[in-house]
Amino acid sequence: MKKLINDPDAVTREALEGMAAAHPDRLRVSYEPAFVVRADAPQQGKVAIVSGGGSGHEPMHGGFVGPGMLDAACPGEVFTSPTPDQMLEATKAVDGGAGVLHIVKNYTGDVLNFEMAADLAQGEGIEVAAVVTNDDVAVEDSTYTAGRRGVGVTVLAEKLCGAAAADGRPLAEVAELCRRVNDQGRSMGMALTPCVTPGSGKPSFTLADDEMEIGIGIHGEPGRRTEKLAPAAAVTEMLAGAILDDGPFADGDRVLAFVNGMGATPLIELYIVYRELHRILEARGIAVARNLVGNYITALDMAGCSITLLKLDDELERLWDAPVDTPALRWSA
Amino acid sequence: MKKLINDPDAVTREALEGMAAAHPDRLRVSYEPAFVVRADAPQQGKVAIVSGGGSGHEPMHGGFVGPGMLDAACPGEVFTSPTPDQMLEATKAVDGGAGVLHIVKNYTGDVLNFEMAADLAQGEGIEVAAVVTNDDVAVEDSTYTAGRRGVGVTVLAEKLCGAAAADGRPLAEVAELCRRVNDQGRSMGMALTPCVTPGSGKPSFTLADDEMEIGIGIHGEPGRRTEKLAPAAAVTEMLAGAILDDGPFADGDRVLAFVNGMGATPLIELYIVYRELHRILEARGIAVARNLVGNYITALDMAGCSITLLKLDDELERLWDAPVDTPALRWSA
Repeated sequence: MKKLINDPDAVTREALEGMAAAHPDRLRVSYEPAFVVRADAPQQGKVAIVSGGGSGHEPMHGGFVGPGMLDAACPGEVFTSPTPDQMLEATKAVDGGAGVLHIVKNYTGDVLNFEMAADLAQGEGIEVAAVVTNDDVAVEDSTYTAGRRGVGVTVLAEKLCGAAAADGRPLAEVAELCRRVNDQGRSMGMALTPCVTPGSGKPSFTLADDEMEIGIGIHGEPGRRTEKLAPAAAVTEMLAGAILDDGPFADGDRVLAFVNGMGATPLIELYIVYRELHRILEARGIAVARNLVGNYITALDMAGCSITLLKLDDELERLWDAPVDTPALRWSA
Repeated sequence: MKKLINDPDAVTREALEGMAAAHPDRLRVSYEPAFVVRADAPQQGKVAIVSGGGSGHEPMHGGFVGPGMLDAACPGEVFTSPTPDQMLEATKAVDGGAGVLHIVKNYTGDVLNFEMAADLAQGEGIEVAAVVTNDDVAVEDSTYTAGRRGVGVTVLAEKLCGAAAADGRPLAEVAELCRRVNDQGRSMGMALTPCVTPGSGKPSFTLADDEMEIGIGIHGEPGRRTEKLAPAAAVTEMLAGAILDDGPFADGDRVLAFVNGMGATPLIELYIVYRELHRILEARGIAVARNLVGNYITALDMAGCSITLLKLDDELERLWDAPVDTPALRWSA
């Protein structure tokens, strides 16, 4: 196992300590239980947004905490759901009296634990809504889910709902927006190499030197099929084709096109994939009105990429363009 | 070779086309000769800043083009110097009458070609100043350099000089600032794995499963020594120790601490390295006043990291905080 770590059992804790040291101006980190929270939480009168999930997908979710995006993120151990007490304490830390939205990726443990945390928080008088993302078109059920997995759309939903909450919208509207984003978005990923978890020290699966996995999950769980390596144009066609066949995308639509790296794929390759994706969409009469290219929802040191398309409208474009100030996404109006 | 590419000979071109498609609001790309330029160039009356070098280090330099940083970047083929005609045409495209600063990493080809381009531009009446960065403390001479290699400080110099140019400072002052930044900064890197160039399809060097290379260059050229793998704390101590022994850093100073990934190292590991670096600096009485953690000057798909320290003062902190709006670095005041 070749990693820049110390103790395999301390990876999550030590990375959180690094985040806390790097971003003291905008973040606080609680360790018992573990969550990352805006330094200026709670924001009185604003709907708060909390997400979370296993670690190993950085910058998701801790890197998305800050004005205009998440109020708090709950990191589990690597590829392990966070616990209800993390979610409950994070929810209490950010509640400003306007309620809290939980954005939950569809993995069985995450969903169950966020449900329990929501019940507990409501028992303490905090209004909670939850939206589960399930945008991965690769498989209908998977190793860790009943139903589709939640992947790249989660990043977009967190940005868009963060903007809506910053606008002062009420909880029901922010939750409805989140459901709409999830409905209008689709994703699919692929891997050139497996990832290695610090705990096991072993590759999560095997791929021959001339093979890739199409439809991979963000924990190295199996996808649709193992194939021979193909050029970027063919890979992009496979991912985009499956997404376009499944989602609500038609000639004349405009979309946000998100090319995401899995952690070990350099930016030069992601821009080549983006080139292919842009051509495919243009050929179908779909305009790319916004885009995002980079490593945002990763699988440790897996090489590969995912594509997410989100159908846009004026409202979503305005929310996307709204200011955001987090470690990983940062722009002004 | 496992890469998301099409034709190995078209990697640079196609990645540039992807960048152009992704950032039409802020960038234009010229292909014959190849350079990336601000969409709103030239800026009349502002000193323009041009950098460049071999491709394979993305986002450097094309990802740093935009308001508050570079006016243009010249990408060579992978790990190959750009040519004087690229640099000349980029210089002409950005000159707004106040002169052009060339920021050049110390590699023999880059230095010679930028010198030739400066001569040609001056022959056409454009005032040019050039500053060569040579911040890598690992080796005194290397495969591709006489003297030390230019690495991470280049990123910081481009940001800081971009801010000074945006402030309206004259060319001589911006160049002097660049020299001061280079003098006050030091870097060193390490690799867990080699990188694979698209042209060769082969690893740039070999490392056993239990080995790492300390003092590596950004092209996979050799460093100081091959060692047995060590924990992140020990690796960080090796890099930071060499930097602190060499540079102008003393108890009571404040620095910008830059933990850079080599392209295939995930963010969770970089934050662990940042944790160690922060502790080492604090123990020496050096305050980390600013920081940067992420993949900014990479070596294709190499796993590893580099550390750069820059001694700060009020002026440099103000320039660092100034607005920047590029694909890779983006913030408002």
